[in-house]
Amino acid sequence: MAVYTDMTDDELAALLAEFDIGQAIAFKGIAEGVENSNFLLETDRGRYILTLYERRVREGDLPYFLNLLTWLADHGFPSARPVADRQGRTLKTVRGKPAAIVEFLIGISARRPTTAHCREAGAGLARLHLAGQGYPGRRENDLGQEAWSPMFARLWDAAEALKPGLADTIRADLDYLGRDWPRGLPTGVIHADFFPDNVFFRDGKFAAAFDFYFACDDAYAYDLAIALNAWCFEADGSFNLTAGRSMLAGYQAHRPLTVEERAALPILAHGAAMRFFLTRLNDWGATPAGALVRPKDPLEYERKLAVHRAGLALLGDHA
Amino acid sequence: MAVYTDMTDDELAALLAEFDIGQAIAFKGIAEGVENSNFLLETDRGRYILTLYERRVREGDLPYFLNLLTWLADHGFPSARPVADRQGRTLKTVRGKPAAIVEFLIGISARRPTTAHCREAGAGLARLHLAGQGYPGRRENDLGQEAWSPMFARLWDAAEALKPGLADTIRADLDYLGRDWPRGLPTGVIHADFFPDNVFFRDGKFAAAFDFYFACDDAYAYDLAIALNAWCFEADGSFNLTAGRSMLAGYQAHRPLTVEERAALPILAHGAAMRFFLTRLNDWGATPAGALVRPKDPLEYERKLAVHRAGLALLGDHA
Repeated sequence: MAVYTDMTDDELAALLAEFDIGQAIAFKGIAEGVENSNFLLETDRGRYILTLYERRVREGDLPYFLNLLTWLADHGFPSARPVADRQGRTLKTVRGKPAAIVEFLIGISARRPTTAHCREAGAGLARLHLAGQGYPGRRENDLGQEAWSPMFARLWDAAEALKPGLADTIRADLDYLGRDWPRGLPTGVIHADFFPDNVFFRDGKFAAAFDFYFACDDAYAYDLAIALNAWCFEADGSFNLTAGRSMLAGYQAHRPLTVEERAALPILAHGAAMRFFLTRLNDWGATPAGALVRPKDPLEYERKLAVHRAGLALLGDHA
Repeated sequence: MAVYTDMTDDELAALLAEFDIGQAIAFKGIAEGVENSNFLLETDRGRYILTLYERRVREGDLPYFLNLLTWLADHGFPSARPVADRQGRTLKTVRGKPAAIVEFLIGISARRPTTAHCREAGAGLARLHLAGQGYPGRRENDLGQEAWSPMFARLWDAAEALKPGLADTIRADLDYLGRDWPRGLPTGVIHADFFPDNVFFRDGKFAAAFDFYFACDDAYAYDLAIALNAWCFEADGSFNLTAGRSMLAGYQAHRPLTVEERAALPILAHGAAMRFFLTRLNDWGATPAGALVRPKDPLEYERKLAVHRAGLALLGDHA
């Protein structure tokens, strides 16, 4: 749910006066992106999304994200190109908040991805990894493996409250992940939040990816592991191996994995489940009772952790 | 804030299969309308809004509203025409909830209306009253003058909690309104919620009205009084007489008021302020503490009531 900040027509007109994209003819708040205020902006020249950055996104990181979107669009990847104002700036300020206008993307998210969607999503992720090569921006993954133990130190009680005995299990997971986490895999720009609601399809084909506000430098195969978790589990908590293999095949059609990457997938997927479990557990505790918008259930990722503890060896075997 | 219900792509495809408007190529929840879930739906044939009716709107009233929208569109008024399915039905069911697809309207709401906007809005309201003439549907105003005293009987404590001593003042207002409420004014279809956020402009001209879910049969001049309250007060609580006269002039350019209607405007505006004060007071008390979406402040309309108590005689004098 979004739109935390509203804008007056005068503020919108003042903003558009700094651009060369015409006058607004339609302007609607859209319920997309949990963290920011997003508006559908239509002018007599085209359609755009105006985003006001509200929370979590650090202002200092925005040039990295906006320049990355421009880079990807310049290198043939279907993502929302930021629009530069008359002075060439893409990062603007509205009501004291950072803001940007990007091109509107056509497409629909797969709310219940099929095996065919998983193949297309895998292909899209590989294309993203290839298009990002050479991007000069650098951003560390501040939610990467080294961050998990310090984060969990603050969440021990929350884990126990969620499920008695869970904290010890998570501690053991973290020890294993810290000890065996793979090093030296191919790295580059990763999306780091490649979930079904951040991908558009059109006519069943991958059409675009968006919401790059977790993008950073990390192992490509870790990004794929995040996507396997996000796309290939059934509602009952079981891993759909057919969907997983389909995503791998779609990915490898564009960027074949190395032997080391394939072997690392099970532990990478275990770690990726840990990253989303921890941030969801953190958000779960921080939301006041009675709020209309419930955060995402951390138990979904607790169940995925359990699946990974049992092992996804078959994934690693797959060529 | 909206979008209470989400839809899967399968549900959307199943719904669209019953229409002749093509396949979905974009689908986004939009933050418009407090009561319903609204989606921007783009197909390869055009753009639409899909609404799922969630609360407050009684299912039995929906044919009145949807047929009214069709009638208005057929009679030259710019409102969102409902789209009929292959069987000619505009009222559909999605996830057990009533639903409708209407055409997408181009335009922007005036978040801070100027005097020029007030003139245009007045003209639009008069055009709406004229276009609605002959509409065969009937719907009583269940929030009309006769409903206010019974509603207030349940809100005495809430009024006192808002401002000590307020309940007695409201009781005196209601006695006056009940005694002197004008009868026999010209009636017909009124919008009954003609606020700035329910009106679109384009190039400074009235472009469309929407959100007809309070429409009913009542006095045209009462509808105008609701609009005067909604459009012509300053943020500091003062009534902008220039804006008010501008709205009246815009209205009368299309539908001149009778002598009786002009004379009745001050008490109608007082009553219109009472209607919104009471429903806001009711919603205010019903919202749990900590909810992310705050209802509209009843004190805004308490201040308007005070202005009307002092009298808006000048408005009534205006030809």
